Amino acid sequence: MPTPAETLIADLRKATLLNSIAGILDWDQQVNLPPGSTEWRARQMEVFSPLCHKAATHPRIGRSLDALDAKGEATTAEEKVLRRCARRDYERLTKLPARFVAQKALLDSRSFQAWSEAKKNGDFKKFAPFLTKEITLSRKRAALIGALDPYGEMIDSFSPGMTVGRIEELFSELKAGLVPLSEKILASPVKAKPDLIRDVPTEKQLSFLKKVTAALGYDYSRGRVDVSEHPFSTGNYFDNRITTHFKQDNVISSLFSSIHETGHAMYEQGLPPEWIGTPLGEAVGMAVHESQSRLWENQVGRSRAFWKYWEPIMRREFSPHLDAVSFEELYLSINEVSRCLVRTDSNEVTYNLHVILRFELEKRLIDGSLQIKELPAEWNRLSQELLGVTPRNNTEGCLQDVHWATGLFGYFPSYCLGNMIAAQLWYAVHKEIPAIEEDFAIGKFDRLLGWLRTHVHCKGRRLETEELLEEVTGEKISPKYLLKYLSERYGPLYLR
Amino acid sequence: MPTPAETLIADLRKATLLNSIAGILDWDQQVNLPPGSTEWRARQMEVFSPLCHKAATHPRIGRSLDALDAKGEATTAEEKVLRRCARRDYERLTKLPARFVAQKALLDSRSFQAWSEAKKNGDFKKFAPFLTKEITLSRKRAALIGALDPYGEMIDSFSPGMTVGRIEELFSELKAGLVPLSEKILASPVKAKPDLIRDVPTEKQLSFLKKVTAALGYDYSRGRVDVSEHPFSTGNYFDNRITTHFKQDNVISSLFSSIHETGHAMYEQGLPPEWIGTPLGEAVGMAVHESQSRLWENQVGRSRAFWKYWEPIMRREFSPHLDAVSFEELYLSINEVSRCLVRTDSNEVTYNLHVILRFELEKRLIDGSLQIKELPAEWNRLSQELLGVTPRNNTEGCLQDVHWATGLFGYFPSYCLGNMIAAQLWYAVHKEIPAIEEDFAIGKFDRLLGWLRTHVHCKGRRLETEELLEEVTGEKISPKYLLKYLSERYGPLYLR
Repeated sequence: MPTPAETLIADLRKATLLNSIAGILDWDQQVNLPPGSTEWRARQMEVFSPLCHKAATHPRIGRSLDALDAKGEATTAEEKVLRRCARRDYERLTKLPARFVAQKALLDSRSFQAWSEAKKNGDFKKFAPFLTKEITLSRKRAALIGALDPYGEMIDSFSPGMTVGRIEELFSELKAGLVPLSEKILASPVKAKPDLIRDVPTEKQLSFLKKVTAALGYDYSRGRVDVSEHPFSTGNYFDNRITTHFKQDNVISSLFSSIHETGHAMYEQGLPPEWIGTPLGEAVGMAVHESQSRLWENQVGRSRAFWKYWEPIMRREFSPHLDAVSFEELYLSINEVSRCLVRTDSNEVTYNLHVILRFELEKRLIDGSLQIKELPAEWNRLSQELLGVTPRNNTEGCLQDVHWATGLFGYFPSYCLGNMIAAQLWYAVHKEIPAIEEDFAIGKFDRLLGWLRTHVHCKGRRLETEELLEEVTGEKISPKYLLKYLSERYGPLYLR
Repeated sequence: MPTPAETLIADLRKATLLNSIAGILDWDQQVNLPPGSTEWRARQMEVFSPLCHKAATHPRIGRSLDALDAKGEATTAEEKVLRRCARRDYERLTKLPARFVAQKALLDSRSFQAWSEAKKNGDFKKFAPFLTKEITLSRKRAALIGALDPYGEMIDSFSPGMTVGRIEELFSELKAGLVPLSEKILASPVKAKPDLIRDVPTEKQLSFLKKVTAALGYDYSRGRVDVSEHPFSTGNYFDNRITTHFKQDNVISSLFSSIHETGHAMYEQGLPPEWIGTPLGEAVGMAVHESQSRLWENQVGRSRAFWKYWEPIMRREFSPHLDAVSFEELYLSINEVSRCLVRTDSNEVTYNLHVILRFELEKRLIDGSLQIKELPAEWNRLSQELLGVTPRNNTEGCLQDVHWATGLFGYFPSYCLGNMIAAQLWYAVHKEIPAIEEDFAIGKFDRLLGWLRTHVHCKGRRLETEELLEEVTGEKISPKYLLKYLSERYGPLYLR
């Protein structure tokens, strides 16, 4: 006779297995799906999503949770985490009817396609009806869950424990330090040379990025890299995949998007395998997830030590494309800061302003104070105000990101929170291993990965976002570390 | 209020949508799955397969069928087909418990992996326990279904209407004509030059085979080609994928496996889209399916007219690899006949003997008159008897094919039946369009595809295997057309 905890775990695992199939289908849609097959995929998701939902809301899960609650304090630490997280997920999901889940899955699949096509021509009007429906369903979801603050509920669903107020506080403090710093850097006479490395054959780029990501610690025996329009990572401990996107005129871009996704993937690959399928084998949330991707991409990947090791290899492998480029020119181009319209192409200094822009807009889209038809103009106005540039069209404006097309409202703040957390962890690592960057200069990354495994990955969802930060760094999220890091990294380059 | 037919169709479509997800997962396992992710995939299938089964055995399907039966004769022709086929499928599936389906899915996934690894080293002992379990479950399935003749049930499940007796009759007649013919050809002093074209870069091969398959009529907007260890095709009208496998020393091999899979894919792509998800939008069975792949691969792809058009293009695209090869040398090498150990590498003359070998063995494996431990020796003995060669190891012997590793007993005869049907259709096409081969010489294939669409594809499962043949060609399956075709194609080359 299995115990309630065993029954609970078996049921949660079953739901995870099904959800991971949905993950493969989503991966396939972005990586492989033939253009004429999208409607069939949408209908597959319409039928399959309610089955995933049904497994995750099986009444036996509720009964097991009740039985565990009845045991009161006589539970293990692990059971307590299971109870808290599984209860939280279960309560939310059981409030959503299967019909709603099917409707949302069908819409997401169609809306993703509509956005993909609209983005090509910057045709916001073609996408607007889908965005309207996505907002309507997101509000409906919040109402079904009984959220008093719909946008806050969305934030909390991605990064447990975070609130709109807390994010406003953090972003406002960050902005106060960041705007003058970025303006100083942007005004610097030091400028990276544009188009430094062009037209390196795709196979060479792929081979190099595989070498780099494997050296960082990405386990290719449980992963793979493919090409998609928008780089992403997906999966869990057992099967975790990353994608990249090659740009003819920007070799650096595909490498860094791969390192970013590798950061995500290594978090999942570092979760405790024995707990996969339960909250103890899941990531804290998306803010911490983004801290892992951004830490590897920026703190590590844009460091001088990192390039001390990789520059000679890259020079050799990309020969003759780097022959006329000095180390310093390459390093400056990797850390180029310029006014940039597209978030994913943005340097790490102004990147956070892109996120603040989206946070301001989606908050108002959800509370209704911003009409959908006003979005393109309002995006452009805020872009000018925060970034100092105005998009020439919606492709580089409000259609640039995929998130809203599949109803991911409340996700964007995770990127900026992730940047703050990454910087905070970065200084915490240095406190413990002062010579950590010397590792990078000899192509060694296992001490850093080991530290992250111990302090972040292996904990699963034991702690919420800021609780984790407090445990690891001794304080809640603070923008001061990100500001300090940016000054230390970019000051010597631009403000000497 | 939907009619019983409408309810039935909606329920069948739902089951098809879920099954097509299983198809994507299987495709992914063969094309993409990282080596360390196979056990997770096995567990995904263990959880997902019973859900597919549950959808296909929903009691409402039974009720709709009963309601349609109660209407008696007052049904449309389409409803009659729906009723007959859906009843057949439903009766079979409802006899299988969900637990059995889960157990089989888990075994198939693990057994496929075990076979893949065993094949590498020819290690039959490592695979034997999985084969034992596959045979046990296949017998159990037949018993659950209540089949008096287990192997016959398997045959019928792949090619409706076919029986063991009928196949024995056809194979015996074929063998009587084929053995002397193939011995005459094998004794001919005419020999194709070995290793005619080697080391053509994979990208060039891929680009050429895409051109060829698109010209034949494969719709890439609803399809794609990838690489897998064992070429296959999968999917339906809306999303149909083929794979190929590149061999360094045999450029012809990957081209012909692509044409073969294209034949399968074009059948699916030619089914009536409005009926997809119902028996009217499904193929008759695997014998007819193989007739489509083999017809395009052999009757079309190995014809002189076909190469009149494609040889100059191949010569240009593969330059300089074909510079020293004449048209006649190339054409003979495409139609090389030699004693060969591996079915998938085999020429079309001796190919059928490979199938007869497997038919004899699997019949005895299922009825228990052949012990699993005796299989390698018995395979080798029959190989010497039928093909005149003995495998040097199990990799080129009893481990060469994937089918038994996932319990596909009763499938092999489809290949030989498909060859007979292909030849029979080939002469039927000629009767109607005598100049059809002149089309191929100018790169035109739409008249042939159109004929197949009208006479085979658009009919779905309206008729069973031999009924279809009778309707299209005026007689049941007859080996004489295959023998006639082989004499006419290979006589002028080898027996002049």
